[in-house]
Amino acid sequence: MNNLGLKAKKAGREISRTESGKKNSALLKIAEVIELSVDKLIAENAKDLQAGKANGLDAAMLDRLALTPKNILSMTEGLKQVAALPDPVGEITDLSYRPSGIQVGQMRVPLGVIGIIYESRPNVTVDAAALCLKSGNACILRGGSESIHSNQAIAACIAKGLSEAGLPTESVQIVATTDRSAVGELITMSQYVDVIVPRGGKSLIERISKDATIPVIKHLDGICHVYIDDKADIAKAITIAVNAKTHRYGVCNAMETLLVAESIAEKVLPALAEQYLEKGVELRGCPKTCALIPGCSTATEEDWLTEYLAPILSIKIVDGLNEAIEHINHYGSLHTDAIVTEDYSKARRFLREVDSSSVMVNASTRFADGFEYGLGAEIGISTDKLHARGPVGLKGLTSLKYIVLGDGHIRH
Amino acid sequence: MNNLGLKAKKAGREISRTESGKKNSALLKIAEVIELSVDKLIAENAKDLQAGKANGLDAAMLDRLALTPKNILSMTEGLKQVAALPDPVGEITDLSYRPSGIQVGQMRVPLGVIGIIYESRPNVTVDAAALCLKSGNACILRGGSESIHSNQAIAACIAKGLSEAGLPTESVQIVATTDRSAVGELITMSQYVDVIVPRGGKSLIERISKDATIPVIKHLDGICHVYIDDKADIAKAITIAVNAKTHRYGVCNAMETLLVAESIAEKVLPALAEQYLEKGVELRGCPKTCALIPGCSTATEEDWLTEYLAPILSIKIVDGLNEAIEHINHYGSLHTDAIVTEDYSKARRFLREVDSSSVMVNASTRFADGFEYGLGAEIGISTDKLHARGPVGLKGLTSLKYIVLGDGHIRH
Repeated sequence: MNNLGLKAKKAGREISRTESGKKNSALLKIAEVIELSVDKLIAENAKDLQAGKANGLDAAMLDRLALTPKNILSMTEGLKQVAALPDPVGEITDLSYRPSGIQVGQMRVPLGVIGIIYESRPNVTVDAAALCLKSGNACILRGGSESIHSNQAIAACIAKGLSEAGLPTESVQIVATTDRSAVGELITMSQYVDVIVPRGGKSLIERISKDATIPVIKHLDGICHVYIDDKADIAKAITIAVNAKTHRYGVCNAMETLLVAESIAEKVLPALAEQYLEKGVELRGCPKTCALIPGCSTATEEDWLTEYLAPILSIKIVDGLNEAIEHINHYGSLHTDAIVTEDYSKARRFLREVDSSSVMVNASTRFADGFEYGLGAEIGISTDKLHARGPVGLKGLTSLKYIVLGDGHIRH
Repeated sequence: MNNLGLKAKKAGREISRTESGKKNSALLKIAEVIELSVDKLIAENAKDLQAGKANGLDAAMLDRLALTPKNILSMTEGLKQVAALPDPVGEITDLSYRPSGIQVGQMRVPLGVIGIIYESRPNVTVDAAALCLKSGNACILRGGSESIHSNQAIAACIAKGLSEAGLPTESVQIVATTDRSAVGELITMSQYVDVIVPRGGKSLIERISKDATIPVIKHLDGICHVYIDDKADIAKAITIAVNAKTHRYGVCNAMETLLVAESIAEKVLPALAEQYLEKGVELRGCPKTCALIPGCSTATEEDWLTEYLAPILSIKIVDGLNEAIEHINHYGSLHTDAIVTEDYSKARRFLREVDSSSVMVNASTRFADGFEYGLGAEIGISTDKLHARGPVGLKGLTSLKYIVLGDGHIRH
């Protein structure tokens, strides 16, 4: 691991000063190599799938683990998209003269070496490598042990692409061992690694955050809320609340709790409940909600704190905006929360006062996503408050340093 | 401590949505109250000074601890300056339409609750409170135990000013106990505190970073370099190198190591050495440097890694730009480094490739400072790579959340 770190740091220095054109050509070369290696990748992946089956992985996990011609194509398309994104590195902003005569500005720079720890999906190997490379960072990738053959085959493609483009192959390194202690080393090598990005379930992320001595960009719960205000347009409210819950269930930006202003509840909840029940969504409500919706079970305190990631929804009737904001700031997870309202002042207050990484007016929480936001791709969604909040794209993998231009200026 | 945290979190919510005008009027009220309390402050400070003398504090520490009419005036001027700065909170940037029809932008928001741990200087109490308040954050301040009476007297002024302005007095809280375990609690109350800013010596900061479970904005060493390139203007080089070392010795942005291109060393070093020796600066050089400067002692490996904070300078003759950049990135502390050159391409490379929070061309490292950069004031200088690098002003105490505006938009 130490050797990996040392090499990554060295490669990181080189990649940090590499021109955009060269980085882009490396990304395209990697895509080319992957396109030529589909059979090999699928063969290596078959070993992982076979081992996975033997080890009793469930169908969902095997599905995430599988490489198919279709998801290999989406990997190479991802590489081409990242190549097409503007390079954030070296951008200089706010360069202006100070009274002393010096010019002061800020330059966007890579973070250095990024350690990425993820679970079984092998496509993360390519996505993460592409984002790190484009943002001028070296990376050390530690995928799930279930996908070790797939990841090593992908890593070989990446290394070939890098080398064909004349970039150091150590810019992207895969931890070749499935030994768990490697993770422990990776997250404490502060002399080599600048930031850790864990991707996976909450327990993985909590474990890593607890033990890491390096800053972690983390994504914990997605307890997202939609608040239907008394001044909501009912048609919009229903469309958004249905989309936010039922578009996909297992995603972090799905709504988990619906808040409804008391004075509009009677008009909106029965119609909404009908659509949810039709889609098989289990409803758990506060007593007032239960009185309006037959078949709704009573929500417990625990429900307001739960990310179901499933066709379950908790519903609470609130007095109005103040109680809604208070509920979200208390029970929410700083992820994504939306208000549905036609009221200008309430929209303005909700945007300012809800302390989440994405705050929305009259839009589905499902939009909280790097592609939808125009970041091109994301390495994850941060629920931290420092550095990067919300979808983390190329900029989230960089920082700003100050630059000062003088002409022999000294301080008096 | 728990109670302090709970109150801070509540006050933080209120202060985060407080209008700029009200925050500014609180800052000015606090200044007013302090102006009316000079005698009281000096009397309370006298208790600390007396105890400090009895406990054998040295003259430098007593000097930092002392409140005088002059430094009280500079505290109130600081408050007025912060009041005059633009409010960073709520600023919306990059709001633009996406193909889906939603508008996506970013809003600058406070971090929440900031814990500040500092050593004996009581003026930090006012400076830190002012920056946190203006940036919409609540803060919990833990000053050195030597200044407990002074800090409590200042805290009373702050509380009075806040309350006269109609803001919650819990926005700024002082840890009233000198018990060391309070620090341990403060840096692990992740449910209440969002970030820790330690201000003080390296050992304090290292200790806090090690034990904190909350993100820390830290300032470790300031091992700053000036590199005199072979294309340097010799007059500028001498002026800058003298200023960077001798303007003040005990500051983090003073030069600690001078690098000189071999081909210009003979022309610049003897003249420079003369000025340093005149000012009583001890010189420690590489063998080539020692050959050029009589009386220069030989530098050890340890010297390149040392922040002297004293009239001592290490000097190394390097081949040229590549070796200079390599030396800085290897031995430096990511703080501030400068090149002196008239060569456009070398200046361009130095700016891009030196990985420090401030990188300068033809200017003294002494400019690395919040006031000089136009930030108005600083809570510290960060040598971290995430979140904020270099002088941390109001913006460094905020973060960006995404805002999304739609009109019933859902994801397809």
